Amino acid sequence: MPTPTLNIELERAGEEPLYRQLFTQIRGQIDGGDLPDGARLPASRSLARQLGISRISVVNAYNELRAAGYLSAHAGRGTFVARQREATEIAPPPRSAPAKRQRASAIRELMRRARKPGLIDFSGGAPPGEFFPLRYLQEAINQVFERDGADALAYEAPEGYLPLRRSVRDYVRAIGINCRVDDVLITGGAQQAIDLVLQSLMRPGETLLTANPTYPGIIDIAEARRVHIRGLPIDEDGIRIDALENALDHLRPRLIYVMPSYQNPTGHLMPLHRRRQLARLAAQHRIPVLEDEVYREFRYDGDELPPLKALDESGVVIHTNAFTKVLLPGIRIGYLVADAPYTERLARVKRAADISTPGLNQRAIHLLLERGVLAQQLERNRIELRRRRVAALAAAQRYLPEGCQWRAPGGGLFLWVELPVDGPSADQTFMAAIERDVAFAIGALFFSGDGGRQAMRLNFGIHKPETIEEGFRRIGEAWAAL
Amino acid sequence: MPTPTLNIELERAGEEPLYRQLFTQIRGQIDGGDLPDGARLPASRSLARQLGISRISVVNAYNELRAAGYLSAHAGRGTFVARQREATEIAPPPRSAPAKRQRASAIRELMRRARKPGLIDFSGGAPPGEFFPLRYLQEAINQVFERDGADALAYEAPEGYLPLRRSVRDYVRAIGINCRVDDVLITGGAQQAIDLVLQSLMRPGETLLTANPTYPGIIDIAEARRVHIRGLPIDEDGIRIDALENALDHLRPRLIYVMPSYQNPTGHLMPLHRRRQLARLAAQHRIPVLEDEVYREFRYDGDELPPLKALDESGVVIHTNAFTKVLLPGIRIGYLVADAPYTERLARVKRAADISTPGLNQRAIHLLLERGVLAQQLERNRIELRRRRVAALAAAQRYLPEGCQWRAPGGGLFLWVELPVDGPSADQTFMAAIERDVAFAIGALFFSGDGGRQAMRLNFGIHKPETIEEGFRRIGEAWAAL
Repeated sequence: MPTPTLNIELERAGEEPLYRQLFTQIRGQIDGGDLPDGARLPASRSLARQLGISRISVVNAYNELRAAGYLSAHAGRGTFVARQREATEIAPPPRSAPAKRQRASAIRELMRRARKPGLIDFSGGAPPGEFFPLRYLQEAINQVFERDGADALAYEAPEGYLPLRRSVRDYVRAIGINCRVDDVLITGGAQQAIDLVLQSLMRPGETLLTANPTYPGIIDIAEARRVHIRGLPIDEDGIRIDALENALDHLRPRLIYVMPSYQNPTGHLMPLHRRRQLARLAAQHRIPVLEDEVYREFRYDGDELPPLKALDESGVVIHTNAFTKVLLPGIRIGYLVADAPYTERLARVKRAADISTPGLNQRAIHLLLERGVLAQQLERNRIELRRRRVAALAAAQRYLPEGCQWRAPGGGLFLWVELPVDGPSADQTFMAAIERDVAFAIGALFFSGDGGRQAMRLNFGIHKPETIEEGFRRIGEAWAAL
Repeated sequence: MPTPTLNIELERAGEEPLYRQLFTQIRGQIDGGDLPDGARLPASRSLARQLGISRISVVNAYNELRAAGYLSAHAGRGTFVARQREATEIAPPPRSAPAKRQRASAIRELMRRARKPGLIDFSGGAPPGEFFPLRYLQEAINQVFERDGADALAYEAPEGYLPLRRSVRDYVRAIGINCRVDDVLITGGAQQAIDLVLQSLMRPGETLLTANPTYPGIIDIAEARRVHIRGLPIDEDGIRIDALENALDHLRPRLIYVMPSYQNPTGHLMPLHRRRQLARLAAQHRIPVLEDEVYREFRYDGDELPPLKALDESGVVIHTNAFTKVLLPGIRIGYLVADAPYTERLARVKRAADISTPGLNQRAIHLLLERGVLAQQLERNRIELRRRRVAALAAAQRYLPEGCQWRAPGGGLFLWVELPVDGPSADQTFMAAIERDVAFAIGALFFSGDGGRQAMRLNFGIHKPETIEEGFRRIGEAWAAL
């Protein structure tokens, strides 16, 4: 394999030492696939000459890359890319942005490996499989085949299957959103909806505001799209308004992402006055707000609140939800509701992304909606989830270490627990917990910057009350053992 | 609504007049949604002062925008964004890049509006519905429900359903690709596969090389991702090697996109020697090549050729295909095969894009593959498509205007016809054709730059022989009437 030309740009006046900049850029090119396994790097002397820096900087960078498991050297033959995945992904977390990303992958990998039969797993984000209206869906799919034949398997319009768009329009009108059918775009789940909005409204290097902690999927998207994510501090009502004002004044953000109802991971519900403040601020600054309402229908108590989009008079709010988040995650049907200036571009980006969401899936969900199956199933799920919440709160009280803090969520699937600051960290607790066959989501996953070292998210919705009790007992035991 | 601050960057030393630059940028901001309907623009005097240009430039730009249907002015109140969609989309095509894009939308809109009952439509890109193995698919879905229950509707791994990845591995090994299961990523059709590759390997402003003409979906993606697309001239074997060498030497491209088998739209088959040259050049320059083989299985005669990926010794080729392109477009299952340095990043971007492709759909396609249903169906389709090709070639000979040129395609669905250069254009012919209830795809849609004014793409695969004959007869008549 020939020696590739490295495309390196050093900031000579920057604060970061040159060898470190070189290290980061070469690592980035290896991670990004520009430098494949087996590629030979230029000799240190020639790279130093090419870049006009001292040879010792290059040697240091190569040494670091070797130590981090990215390179191998063969005396007399040269230096080669030889990525040892294990070495890099489990490496201790340094502080740069790629390091943070690497730490998140390491945590995910850790959580993935922990999965085994018999594990009581509170780490997932999905609702339990027994809640899915399987038979109804199967029936609906068969009916679509009988009714539509090949039409159900032809390309669908990028904007979505028209009758489903109409159903969505009616659905969101019922929660106060002034919506026309043209304002609705069907997507591959809420994740694609969020990604399309970022692609349509943001360019690389621009700033996105979110709560901190936040939904990890938006951190993934920000990374993939190379946009800056700035996590704002929250209080019990959501993003703090003073922090938001400050960020709007000084950071020139292009988009605000919020989850007003039963936020993932903290479970907080943004009250009406905060919703109004947020909508007003966004309108004043003319910054679009993407509200992700995927947990909206997981309400256990309290009044139903209007979504931000229902309070939006200037067209800056974009609303997303996915019926299937709460019922059928694997079928991947979500939607966006937005005003005209946005929808056209969103539809263009959607067509570029995957032409359309599978028509068969859209038609089946449409039938389920029309028949009220989804609403009935939600109601049944709610009753069972309330029981599980009661069990989780009682088990937390009984088994979690003294000094832990949590709030009873008014909805959603998650209990967000902060461990005592002076005790074992969430990582440490996790390691001890998996030895006892129980797992949870480590808090750091939900933070765009540092943070979450002492936090954990527990999906109580996914287990029966007795399993919740046993799982929480083991977590308490794991912590105490440390 | 408050007056927004316009973010304008003018090139004072550029060739384009300042008013025209201003026009293009404001229009871009309206199209992109930065300037929503109803937004008030700054007064011409104050914008001129802000930008340090003469007021007459601003006035001219506003006048042009008004003429193009983007603004309205109310005496004494100011100038407002008021987009009149009809006006802008049917506007005559100027020469800038956004204009080209607008022209493509206008053509698409025109083609969309032409659809009506009774139309003989040769414009689509999909195979005909009667080719879909509907009953088998329905059966497979029911079996997946019975076998997997809720697992079929839980989140799938971002990389795809493992048994399907194994089937894909076996499938591509059979055509000579050295593939491990880790090299396979399941996607939402080939369109998403292409989009993921662009997202993983390219940044905005970088250059992508394609054939000219090319698949319009890649033009859509390039636009959505803001990458430059450079279309290279082709001969009867595909991209010309001299043009490719020249582009590799001078344009610093980041990716080459090709469709080696029965290219859309021209139908050409890249012969083995050209495949070898292309793979070698890419390896020498270390530029990744994305080969899109979605028409591979539409082979009517001639030997089967190895895909580029089978000739690739240095890991620069990424291979994509979609079983469902040829059989079940609406179910949206495609795949990528790539070497390790690429797959990890591709999987990360896939997770950000939509978490995963619907598991139910993946499992059903897996069953169809395992049972050989797709292979049988392909064989049946091929027999029928050969008949239709014969009919199309005979009808072209008989009815298309003298001086038209086309080549008999060895595979694929399309006949690419070049009209006589001195006669009516494809647009004009189209307008006359739809009056006679027949439609085709206008050539300009497939060109990234100018070109295609005298070309049309006819999907003969979608119609029965007698309909093909009647449709071609009407096109000839339409042309003759002009």
